Amino acid sequence: MHIPETMKAAVMTKPREIVVETRPVPELNGDEVLVKVMAVGVCGSDVHYYEHGRIGNAIVKNPMILGHECAGEVVAVGGAVSRFRGGERVAIEPQTTCGRCPACKSGKYNLCPDVVFFATPPVDGAFAQYVKAREDFLFPIPDHLPYEEASLVEPFSVGIHAANRTGLKPGATVAIMGMGPVGLMAVVAAKAYGASRIFVTDLEPIRLEAALRLGATHAVNVRERDAVEAILARTDGLGVDAAWETAGNPKALQSALLSVRRGGKLAVVGLPMQAEIPFNVHAITDREIDIYGVFRYANTYPSGIAFLASGIADAASLITDRYSLERTQDALERALNNKSGSLKVMVYPNA
Amino acid sequence: MHIPETMKAAVMTKPREIVVETRPVPELNGDEVLVKVMAVGVCGSDVHYYEHGRIGNAIVKNPMILGHECAGEVVAVGGAVSRFRGGERVAIEPQTTCGRCPACKSGKYNLCPDVVFFATPPVDGAFAQYVKAREDFLFPIPDHLPYEEASLVEPFSVGIHAANRTGLKPGATVAIMGMGPVGLMAVVAAKAYGASRIFVTDLEPIRLEAALRLGATHAVNVRERDAVEAILARTDGLGVDAAWETAGNPKALQSALLSVRRGGKLAVVGLPMQAEIPFNVHAITDREIDIYGVFRYANTYPSGIAFLASGIADAASLITDRYSLERTQDALERALNNKSGSLKVMVYPNA
Amino acid sequence: MHIPETMKAAVMTKPREIVVETRPVPELNGDEVLVKVMAVGVCGSDVHYYEHGRIGNAIVKNPMILGHECAGEVVAVGGAVSRFRGGERVAIEPQTTCGRCPACKSGKYNLCPDVVFFATPPVDGAFAQYVKAREDFLFPIPDHLPYEEASLVEPFSVGIHAANRTGLKPGATVAIMGMGPVGLMAVVAAKAYGASRIFVTDLEPIRLEAALRLGATHAVNVRERDAVEAILARTDGLGVDAAWETAGNPKALQSALLSVRRGGKLAVVGLPMQAEIPFNVHAITDREIDIYGVFRYANTYPSGIAFLASGIADAASLITDRYSLERTQDALERALNNKSGSLKVMVYPNA
Amino acid sequence: MHIPETMKAAVMTKPREIVVETRPVPELNGDEVLVKVMAVGVCGSDVHYYEHGRIGNAIVKNPMILGHECAGEVVAVGGAVSRFRGGERVAIEPQTTCGRCPACKSGKYNLCPDVVFFATPPVDGAFAQYVKAREDFLFPIPDHLPYEEASLVEPFSVGIHAANRTGLKPGATVAIMGMGPVGLMAVVAAKAYGASRIFVTDLEPIRLEAALRLGATHAVNVRERDAVEAILARTDGLGVDAAWETAGNPKALQSALLSVRRGGKLAVVGLPMQAEIPFNVHAITDREIDIYGVFRYANTYPSGIAFLASGIADAASLITDRYSLERTQDALERALNNKSGSLKVMVYPNA
Repeated sequence: MHIPETMKAAVMTKPREIVVETRPVPELNGDEVLVKVMAVGVCGSDVHYYEHGRIGNAIVKNPMILGHECAGEVVAVGGAVSRFRGGERVAIEPQTTCGRCPACKSGKYNLCPDVVFFATPPVDGAFAQYVKAREDFLFPIPDHLPYEEASLVEPFSVGIHAANRTGLKPGATVAIMGMGPVGLMAVVAAKAYGASRIFVTDLEPIRLEAALRLGATHAVNVRERDAVEAILARTDGLGVDAAWETAGNPKALQSALLSVRRGGKLAVVGLPMQAEIPFNVHAITDREIDIYGVFRYANTYPSGIAFLASGIADAASLITDRYSLERTQDALERALNNKSGSLKVMVYPNA
Repeated sequence: MHIPETMKAAVMTKPREIVVETRPVPELNGDEVLVKVMAVGVCGSDVHYYEHGRIGNAIVKNPMILGHECAGEVVAVGGAVSRFRGGERVAIEPQTTCGRCPACKSGKYNLCPDVVFFATPPVDGAFAQYVKAREDFLFPIPDHLPYEEASLVEPFSVGIHAANRTGLKPGATVAIMGMGPVGLMAVVAAKAYGASRIFVTDLEPIRLEAALRLGATHAVNVRERDAVEAILARTDGLGVDAAWETAGNPKALQSALLSVRRGGKLAVVGLPMQAEIPFNVHAITDREIDIYGVFRYANTYPSGIAFLASGIADAASLITDRYSLERTQDALERALNNKSGSLKVMVYPNA
Repeated sequence: MHIPETMKAAVMTKPREIVVETRPVPELNGDEVLVKVMAVGVCGSDVHYYEHGRIGNAIVKNPMILGHECAGEVVAVGGAVSRFRGGERVAIEPQTTCGRCPACKSGKYNLCPDVVFFATPPVDGAFAQYVKAREDFLFPIPDHLPYEEASLVEPFSVGIHAANRTGLKPGATVAIMGMGPVGLMAVVAAKAYGASRIFVTDLEPIRLEAALRLGATHAVNVRERDAVEAILARTDGLGVDAAWETAGNPKALQSALLSVRRGGKLAVVGLPMQAEIPFNVHAITDREIDIYGVFRYANTYPSGIAFLASGIADAASLITDRYSLERTQDALERALNNKSGSLKVMVYPNA
Repeated sequence: MHIPETMKAAVMTKPREIVVETRPVPELNGDEVLVKVMAVGVCGSDVHYYEHGRIGNAIVKNPMILGHECAGEVVAVGGAVSRFRGGERVAIEPQTTCGRCPACKSGKYNLCPDVVFFATPPVDGAFAQYVKAREDFLFPIPDHLPYEEASLVEPFSVGIHAANRTGLKPGATVAIMGMGPVGLMAVVAAKAYGASRIFVTDLEPIRLEAALRLGATHAVNVRERDAVEAILARTDGLGVDAAWETAGNPKALQSALLSVRRGGKLAVVGLPMQAEIPFNVHAITDREIDIYGVFRYANTYPSGIAFLASGIADAASLITDRYSLERTQDALERALNNKSGSLKVMVYPNA
């Protein structure tokens, strides 16, 4: 397999400026694999870095390649690699963890303090023709699963992790606040976990409609109706077993808390702009709610791939906009500006 | 065993007025047991009802007997009672649950919507010579455990439940905010659960000293030092495995959240006056914290009695003030007014 | 609603003798509900009592009505009943538990020592025109769910309980040994829990075919091939995440243990004739297997009904034989004798 | 710090022959640490390899150094080591796992298929003056904890893992079968986990007495009395919450199963000679028992060290026999032959 020495990469040079540059193809360590990137989804965090140059204390100080939701084809392997030979179609879990700290050793590797994560400063991401990854963070995908769909395993993983964190059981009822791509893939996760009823909320009809296509059973447009009221009205006034807030919206988070039944569970997935948000503590204690922070994910890729490959939902229907690598800036602008007309924006570095 | 037809009871007639009245001794249903009350602790909720006539939506509309932390001697049993015959020394779990709703059937009977709880309006409590309880909420205590200590199993249960909710493992580190009686008994719970280090916070030196006697390893007077800073300084900047807020203090709750390590757990035990308290959501997500509401307790009495009977801590040292039934109003005033000189106030209805 | 004073009931007078007698319609306690029985499945335990007059130490000493998988229509309610008024279509969870013992209070009411269970000596069962049950063990079924299918919630519950006991996660792989009615409904449970692959074993092609119709992905006829070998061959030699033995067959139990991957889980559902069966202890320790006994079920009916009502599987296709109450003996003989031609035998007491 | 080029090591050349040889001091990889070995406990597995040259399929084919329960002083560190500099006193967790397989990533690194474990063929162990270990498997010990006691953290870890596997809660009752060193340290684990009653069984009075010193509350000599009968007699006929079999004795394993209460838990710790042992399956299902295989341990060292350092038990009292490296063969013979007079045998390679 021919591997060129250089490649094209879409580099963010400053906020709202992406320049396609020629870069050396990454060199492999013994346990690493080189992947030809076939599809990369644009994530909200990419857009946030693109617009503001930072997320909280994570600051883009030097030119950096964005993008972390990706899939591609193995084109070269390091000398110590045993699971791949080249030619395999794979989804990339865009992180490398140390495997040796207490977090890693206890199965919570998403909390590894030494994690290296794609497109989190100063680490380059996947808007490039090639990326490398450590062997154990690559997962084969079946032939019938398109690369673009495989790249959705990344946001899907967040939903799966929320389902794991809240112990979602088959037959449970769940409310999911915010139908951006993470929220939409969380609907698929709730469906995969056998939720009997899935309430979704958003402001945008296009997103609520997409959620219903993916498996939501009740959509609430919060421009028209209060989410808590709508959910209680359909659950005998009791509330749902679990609520997941995915939008980072303070009001949605408060609604999520108040939508949960006594003894129910809340997952905090979305990252709001301001750090401090008022919580109804009486609801937490009187109803004995569990609240779970959700930070990325761990151990989700194999089942995420299996769910999508099984055809549980038409996840590809989320992809509304497609761009070449050269047009990565357009892709980011599209994701930034046109939230009401667009769901998932995708970039194809080797199209 | 002679059972009189009437008894003395300390009745709250309006806020800050307790009148000792003669009342009929409770009549038993077949599955109920009559207990001669030997010791009743004064709880913060008793004091709150005494001062304000209400806690949130729970309003004392008619004259009511307060008191729910109690122990005594079985003096009569209903026809269907099988576990008691009379003469047994018992701690009373001061609630009766339905046993049939989904909460009860799933083991979370503290969330039973039909619970009847001592001294929660309109249910009378234990500042009386006799109370009745359903057989299955009475628990034998060994001869060497004094009644007054057995009455402490009630606040102890809250701490045990917090330990259960936060999955406290032996060897773990814990921070407990607020060293009122619930906080102090939570220290004993943390010790019983094998915590390797127990940080405690309060404003009052007398309480911090009591905590150290009961098993706390580090005391922080928050008049002098910031709790989060003090705890991080002694945990390599990482924070504790679990924090329990027992005071209902907004600042303490915020400190508790920020004292928890990545992947750690927070229990919300205390009920603040205002419902809404700002939470640092970035801490919840970035550190992937679990937050657990704690509402009363379930299935705690047998182990609570066993821990106290084993002499794990000198719990009786908490009892600083002792009153007869006639002086119940003085007991409540003492608990209300003199927080810096008093820890646990106890009433002895049959002294 | 007219309720007659007497009813017809199929009474087992001795092994292999069922006599249809006239009995008084059961009288209700305040918390009980009278149900007109519309469908009753024949369970392996019914057949075992019918053939042998006993299961282990549970001995039928007096004439007894068999049958415990049942559904019907509410026709009368006791004075304290609040959830039903008459006319409701319900599935009956065929047990009554005390709600007060440590097992009940901890959420494991299936282990209540004072349980009263339909058709377990000396308690009468459901091969009768009417039965009564305590309000909290009746569950409404939607109009589109036939009574005969609702009666399958009982064996389905065993599978759901096995899934809960083994913590089956979506995406997991599972092997189910023995495709009698419990095993077949366990396939549906595995599907409801999102199993990605479901291996099934049996001797009878008709049963294996039924399993495949219900959602099994791989069928192994153990007359033709060793179950362990077949399962390992399709799981990269690693084995499945969970195995459930439902047949009470010693060889199948051993195969189940050896089919489980390192760190996997085994549920022991079937009750073998002999008490003692050799276990490969080296497999248990070296692979660090969990083994879970499964005894009946708890808290399964609501989700069981929801799954069947959602059309997750064509459970009604299991019902191969239908009898009137008068022909209850024929139904039991059919279930006893013709295992290769019959799956589920059903009796309709009010047909 | 001076590190010699060669060292003395006690090498097993064939069964029952240990030769003290001069070997090169191990060379370090960047992430490894060199430890001067100060104390090594003799484990039953060492004795078994010494006597038979194999344990099951693990066969000693070439000369090998035994010993894996060890502690010592850091004397050199690889270039990438960050947590040690030299001079630290440490306990050594005698394994190195890959950190990348599904077992490792899910927190069960004891099930890593690529584990390298001290003194498991063909890997050398610790009966030598120096050993090396990867940085993350070394744990600092406080100055007041003697090396010989720190070496006991290894067998202690097995007990801690059994406690974790069986979810032992404070206040629980436990029975531990077999009072060899693993069983005795399991008593300490049960105590650290707050067990309210600890039943122990063995044939040898010296071991039962040691168990009582360490925290057992009831000792049963199974030469004199049936273990099940003795345990049921003291638990109201109900049995204990958890039983741990540590001896690998078939009869003890059967007793352990039958000593467990309904809904209780059994840990299989000991490895019996024969693979197949009859289990009472009726007890497993009727009582809905959980059975957990225990294979080594994971994530136990920090708490194990903390417990021993806290003085929870006089673990050093277990050490009955002490040998220099030159006398390693005598140490193994002592452990092999004199089980009634000896508890823990210790070797000091640098004494």
